[in-house]
Amino acid sequence: MIIVMGPSATEQQVDAVIHKIKEFGLDVNVSRGTERTVVGAIGDERKLDPEMFDALPGVEQSMHIVKPYKIVGREWHKENTVIDIKGVKLGGNQVQVIGGPCSVETQEQMDLAAEQVAAAGCRLMRGGAFKPRTSPYAFQGHGVEGLAIFRRAADKYHLPIVTELMDVRMLDTFLEYDVDVIQIGTRNMQNFDLLKEVGRTSKPVILKRGMSATISEWLMAAEYIAAGGNHNIIFCERGIRTFETAYRNVLDITAIAMLKKESHLPVIIDPSHAGGKAWMVPALALGAVAAGADGLLVEMHPNPCEAWCDADQALNPQEFKSLMGTIKGVAEAIGRTV
Amino acid sequence: MIIVMGPSATEQQVDAVIHKIKEFGLDVNVSRGTERTVVGAIGDERKLDPEMFDALPGVEQSMHIVKPYKIVGREWHKENTVIDIKGVKLGGNQVQVIGGPCSVETQEQMDLAAEQVAAAGCRLMRGGAFKPRTSPYAFQGHGVEGLAIFRRAADKYHLPIVTELMDVRMLDTFLEYDVDVIQIGTRNMQNFDLLKEVGRTSKPVILKRGMSATISEWLMAAEYIAAGGNHNIIFCERGIRTFETAYRNVLDITAIAMLKKESHLPVIIDPSHAGGKAWMVPALALGAVAAGADGLLVEMHPNPCEAWCDADQALNPQEFKSLMGTIKGVAEAIGRTV
Amino acid sequence: MIIVMGPSATEQQVDAVIHKIKEFGLDVNVSRGTERTVVGAIGDERKLDPEMFDALPGVEQSMHIVKPYKIVGREWHKENTVIDIKGVKLGGNQVQVIGGPCSVETQEQMDLAAEQVAAAGCRLMRGGAFKPRTSPYAFQGHGVEGLAIFRRAADKYHLPIVTELMDVRMLDTFLEYDVDVIQIGTRNMQNFDLLKEVGRTSKPVILKRGMSATISEWLMAAEYIAAGGNHNIIFCERGIRTFETAYRNVLDITAIAMLKKESHLPVIIDPSHAGGKAWMVPALALGAVAAGADGLLVEMHPNPCEAWCDADQALNPQEFKSLMGTIKGVAEAIGRTV
Amino acid sequence: MIIVMGPSATEQQVDAVIHKIKEFGLDVNVSRGTERTVVGAIGDERKLDPEMFDALPGVEQSMHIVKPYKIVGREWHKENTVIDIKGVKLGGNQVQVIGGPCSVETQEQMDLAAEQVAAAGCRLMRGGAFKPRTSPYAFQGHGVEGLAIFRRAADKYHLPIVTELMDVRMLDTFLEYDVDVIQIGTRNMQNFDLLKEVGRTSKPVILKRGMSATISEWLMAAEYIAAGGNHNIIFCERGIRTFETAYRNVLDITAIAMLKKESHLPVIIDPSHAGGKAWMVPALALGAVAAGADGLLVEMHPNPCEAWCDADQALNPQEFKSLMGTIKGVAEAIGRTV
Repeated sequence: MIIVMGPSATEQQVDAVIHKIKEFGLDVNVSRGTERTVVGAIGDERKLDPEMFDALPGVEQSMHIVKPYKIVGREWHKENTVIDIKGVKLGGNQVQVIGGPCSVETQEQMDLAAEQVAAAGCRLMRGGAFKPRTSPYAFQGHGVEGLAIFRRAADKYHLPIVTELMDVRMLDTFLEYDVDVIQIGTRNMQNFDLLKEVGRTSKPVILKRGMSATISEWLMAAEYIAAGGNHNIIFCERGIRTFETAYRNVLDITAIAMLKKESHLPVIIDPSHAGGKAWMVPALALGAVAAGADGLLVEMHPNPCEAWCDADQALNPQEFKSLMGTIKGVAEAIGRTV
Repeated sequence: MIIVMGPSATEQQVDAVIHKIKEFGLDVNVSRGTERTVVGAIGDERKLDPEMFDALPGVEQSMHIVKPYKIVGREWHKENTVIDIKGVKLGGNQVQVIGGPCSVETQEQMDLAAEQVAAAGCRLMRGGAFKPRTSPYAFQGHGVEGLAIFRRAADKYHLPIVTELMDVRMLDTFLEYDVDVIQIGTRNMQNFDLLKEVGRTSKPVILKRGMSATISEWLMAAEYIAAGGNHNIIFCERGIRTFETAYRNVLDITAIAMLKKESHLPVIIDPSHAGGKAWMVPALALGAVAAGADGLLVEMHPNPCEAWCDADQALNPQEFKSLMGTIKGVAEAIGRTV
Repeated sequence: MIIVMGPSATEQQVDAVIHKIKEFGLDVNVSRGTERTVVGAIGDERKLDPEMFDALPGVEQSMHIVKPYKIVGREWHKENTVIDIKGVKLGGNQVQVIGGPCSVETQEQMDLAAEQVAAAGCRLMRGGAFKPRTSPYAFQGHGVEGLAIFRRAADKYHLPIVTELMDVRMLDTFLEYDVDVIQIGTRNMQNFDLLKEVGRTSKPVILKRGMSATISEWLMAAEYIAAGGNHNIIFCERGIRTFETAYRNVLDITAIAMLKKESHLPVIIDPSHAGGKAWMVPALALGAVAAGADGLLVEMHPNPCEAWCDADQALNPQEFKSLMGTIKGVAEAIGRTV
Repeated sequence: MIIVMGPSATEQQVDAVIHKIKEFGLDVNVSRGTERTVVGAIGDERKLDPEMFDALPGVEQSMHIVKPYKIVGREWHKENTVIDIKGVKLGGNQVQVIGGPCSVETQEQMDLAAEQVAAAGCRLMRGGAFKPRTSPYAFQGHGVEGLAIFRRAADKYHLPIVTELMDVRMLDTFLEYDVDVIQIGTRNMQNFDLLKEVGRTSKPVILKRGMSATISEWLMAAEYIAAGGNHNIIFCERGIRTFETAYRNVLDITAIAMLKKESHLPVIIDPSHAGGKAWMVPALALGAVAAGADGLLVEMHPNPCEAWCDADQALNPQEFKSLMGTIKGVAEAIGRTV
């Protein structure tokens, strides 16, 4: 931790800062410059917080120099983490495409979708039983019945399933239906009680980035899960909120490179929610794979025009299959497989 | 709902749009312009969604023209809603300042804070027993014990209490301790299951704006609470996330004017979390009152330098009292009382 | 400047950093912590730049600890600067409201506007002869003829004039027409050649904040003007660009407090461009004055519905006069005059 | 243009809107729904502006339904525009990588850079003679002398040159040195006088996106150039400003897909300024090419650690050459060449 004293800070004020640091058992380095005095804390600075010092008289600003995350940080875990989802490896050399509809509608729709997802070459399937909708009057998902439908459809094609958990009270039901990967949605990235609970399971968790979450907050949300003992965490970038209104979100592919540097955990991309329109999905999906994503979460619906939700962003089966082919080519160009 | 057809849309594509609208029982107006054909849906357009049409061939864009919220909208409820909190009126002519520390620390701290809050002329008190912290390693609040401490301290000075609910499983405990106003924090603004549950109680709810929530999403989050039957909702703007890094958030006072136009519900401001530094609080508090806020949520701590959390943003009792005086002057200049 | 070395930095890499600092004539303080080594540069760090060090092997990050601005900074100039505009003082205790239409349309319109501006109690008048329009097909202003019209109208009521300069080649014409205050618009905040040229005059300059300019970039833009010798600079906040689409911009009143802390120069607010709608202007204007603004730039048009540009954001003369009255009350509540 | 009347609009107010539309020679369609009346203007709506109607009593909102740009829009020009830069084609099937240093430093540096750029397989070279710097005290570029140095170095390797024009008064000098492609920087995207002047030349123009410019504003800035007669415009996305602070900007690859849909003009990407760090450049460059970019603007310096500006974001010659190889593979995977 670095504490920068203001230009007119007194000796007494510098001493108060030093005293506060020592109270927490850390040592101190004082650098007296021509315009500012800088106090550095030597030791485990995670015990300290900038706000402790910013409130003291004479302090101009203070900042951490060590990263606040531990378990999820690459600094303490150099190798890439590869997560095993019923035998499917995510985070290794093979890029995984997780396909499927936005929401579980009917058994027929899910059976057909599962068949098409498998036929396109995917090894994992997505589908929503509980849907976070902006409006209380919109379709909220089939709930538990949706889990049952999804489970049946996916099992026929041996596809592990990915689905979103919104309410901590439903976790036991998710475990009962043996959901293979629990998705934490963008609106719940900092629902800390939910993070703590999934942290107590051993299920792989896809942690979507909050709409305007910084990389640092996202890593700390993952740390909440990891601190509970569950290290099977997959980051999923799904577009961030900016000033631009021409598309729903701005897909942030720089996040892939940054997360890969800061963390050992896998990173996947959701090109469907990012752009919000089916015609944008191929460009975003290919861009993400070329930029280093370990996987994709892509919406595919047997008949997009009839989809109950997000109809405008789902690919149809032909588009999806064709995209899978191009993804393969791009992955190979950077030395990966699909 | 307005559906704009692309420049090369065919008659057949226009017909498909008309057909879809009629399926939902609405009528249609078709306007054929020189460059675009526009189809308007006549009837209750809340049954329709732009994504239903954006997926159809030939459609360029579609948009709602009626507001998606009903209960919270001023269109259907012209008068300001005044909320009664154990006799204290929020949303009327009197501006309410809710003072108190960030977190409940000790009985002594809370007793002292309650005394100072009352002495400054406040009628409501704030304090956090459950704290949403970015880091899992930071102080998470005293929990239930904190509620008990807070209740005891506030009762001595007959101050109704405001405190944050993070986990739906704690709602019964909140009701047991008779928390007077339930605060839904910025990270939970779209925790829909939590909103639904507080919507089933009759407790006043302070709904903080999500970090990057639009006015429309915020109103829809309130609609989730209202749809459950609880109309005692207070909006609280606490600064939004932008590109600026010189302060924690950007306090959005335009939101006050906009919410007052769109909704009949009260609007308060949290100048403490907005700026993030105690020295900014007076300017932001005064600006908010002059711009029409019905109340303020201000952090005050008996001894800010020793505060366990947000030490740098709490006012001390003297600063707080002095600010109350100036707030009174500004309120009177616009015809209100404090 | 603080240079933080990465966790696996070698002695040789630390030495390279030290060597680079010494090359520029500065001294060095090295602090070896348990997880990071931090190198501090002692001396005038303005000679250094983080990018010089970030490129060196082993460096994790580097940052300035001294502010990059000099002339405009309060650190070296403690008292508020009060700017004299033909006898009208801006930046002192009196709040100045600069009223007038968006654009100069006709002599009649400007004569009428000047009369109304003066009648409302304003001492300065605004009006645009050169208009920065998003579309090349929109009305671009009357140009030089507009300056002549404006000058004539304002002179009748002894109102100094404020108008926008967009093109460096028009500066001589501005001086010829003796424009009293040169406005640099939001799109030109970092048009460095324009800043340098107005810096060579002695005319007061209103420097509007760029749409997404940070406080630091804004101060540096002012420093460009100041470095040329012209210290008569007035900051004007006019709303920033964010994710919110319910209003044109988000008025950032926190910027007032921050600029007042960092700089000695006056700060005014443009509530008209901020919200973009006339009905929002009073709330924003009052909020800005209560938050400490030294003045306001308000659009007033004799007949807003017929205005050639920004018709929806101009107040009519009655609304403007009424607002002036309330502004007076709020200013007095915080110890200022209007 | 669609004008939505408020729920309590009177017949008289609807008539006033109709009257205003007819004044401009357009026809009208009125749709009376259950909750709103919507007035549609039939004819060339570019003569109208939402602000004309928003100011009228009873109007709730009004919006364009036709795009405001003409010349640059794909609606009126279906085929991709391919720009010829001294025989090098940009916008066709071949992806062009424009390499070179941030700034022109010395003849030796530029000679070496030109050699390396050509050796890596590039057909165009970049380099800055006039540098837009946040601080007035930073190196501002060598100016005209820099142009001469650059011209000499590039000519040896027959590389057309790309360099930034900041000041309209330097345009003649640029033409004199026969600059092959004029770059308009991010801070000048809405410097309308500069756009108008380059619009009068026939030189290809790279128009960088403003830091927080919307796609629509960017297209309109291009329309300024095109309206002057110069249709040789290349869009360059270079990262946008968001809330994220972990990297300098967020590269917006969705912009590529959106521009390709809305416009016939080529789109290139600047991965160097986007991320701001050399180690991010390959990921961003590959992502951009896979997402459909027609070219890249990449900073390469013979010795990055000694670069006079942006030292931390330039690739060294080996990194650059290696990246060119991978770009080739990715381009081929999507059916293009390099």
